[in-house]
Amino acid sequence: MTRATPSARAPGRPRSGVNDVVFAATLSTVQELGYARATVERIAAAAGVAKTTVYRRWPSKGALIVDCLLDAFGSVPLEASGRTELITDAIRWTAAKIGEPGVGDAFAGVFSDAVSDPALREILSARLQDPYRLALQDALGEPRERVLFLIDVVVGTLLHRMGMTGEPMADTDVTALIEMVLAHFADRAGPA
Amino acid sequence: MTRATPSARAPGRPRSGVNDVVFAATLSTVQELGYARATVERIAAAAGVAKTTVYRRWPSKGALIVDCLLDAFGSVPLEASGRTELITDAIRWTAAKIGEPGVGDAFAGVFSDAVSDPALREILSARLQDPYRLALQDALGEPRERVLFLIDVVVGTLLHRMGMTGEPMADTDVTALIEMVLAHFADRAGPA
Repeated sequence: MTRATPSARAPGRPRSGVNDVVFAATLSTVQELGYARATVERIAAAAGVAKTTVYRRWPSKGALIVDCLLDAFGSVPLEASGRTELITDAIRWTAAKIGEPGVGDAFAGVFSDAVSDPALREILSARLQDPYRLALQDALGEPRERVLFLIDVVVGTLLHRMGMTGEPMADTDVTALIEMVLAHFADRAGPA
Repeated sequence: MTRATPSARAPGRPRSGVNDVVFAATLSTVQELGYARATVERIAAAAGVAKTTVYRRWPSKGALIVDCLLDAFGSVPLEASGRTELITDAIRWTAAKIGEPGVGDAFAGVFSDAVSDPALREILSARLQDPYRLALQDALGEPRERVLFLIDVVVGTLLHRMGMTGEPMADTDVTALIEMVLAHFADRAGPA
């Protein structure tokens, strides 16, 4: 999965520990104050860096949150050989990531801002969703529209549960989600 | 479906057109400015009423948004006699409501705030979700956990699509959602 890293926007700047420190401060600040009150100013203060340091790397809070989420999620596991295992692994992995401290809050927050912010939507879609979409299209041999639907179902369901209960979805429900999705995607040929 | 109306908190006050005016102003302000920037002050200004008039009826922005959504959604249609028709109608109705101007934005916004706001979560869950959950439990003869899962899947999927694209889900995908949900819920006895 290729993606532009923040350092690509600041050539020559070593991708030092600053990103890691800012990402950790972002998640802890969002977890503590909620997405709306976690301003770039407060995140910079929690990271112990100047606000300008943050803005030099990320032009907006939305861009920072998206890179922070990319860093927190990393690559989707696609080692399994069968379609059933691939989908199962991907859903369990998504559920676990969204359950990590601050990640669900940051995800739900940036997401909700995006509903009324076309520029943020473009960042979310192109930088965060597209790499996973393309990896899943390849691994599953499914067309774009089916994978977009899969992502809507899995991520949407997990975030909705998080919003309503403040807690990650319990294992039994994640299992139900996996069964439902597998049944729906079973009516197509698998990858090889 | 019973629910406390704002007027229950202000006995003697006629449930005049003020609520309708404030609800309309809430949706248009959220649609125009986005959830985060649609403050109670701006909503009151758009409605042409004093901020205190709004706060006398709704103690917080979250409470206002939830009542506004209750008003926009109204009752879930449960006239159909069969399980398949009931689920199909409920999903199409949810998709249409979330697609109305301002409703998806308001829903996604209050939802994301709730992730880090336990009091708002309680309002969302008790005032907005529970009436629909109970009506669906009755109509479908399904236990609480299964209906909560159904709501997570349907509302979560529709809101995720809205957040990523800024547009309601297209009909073909709503149809896929209905098929997926129907298959998952088909392994139980229907109502009567």
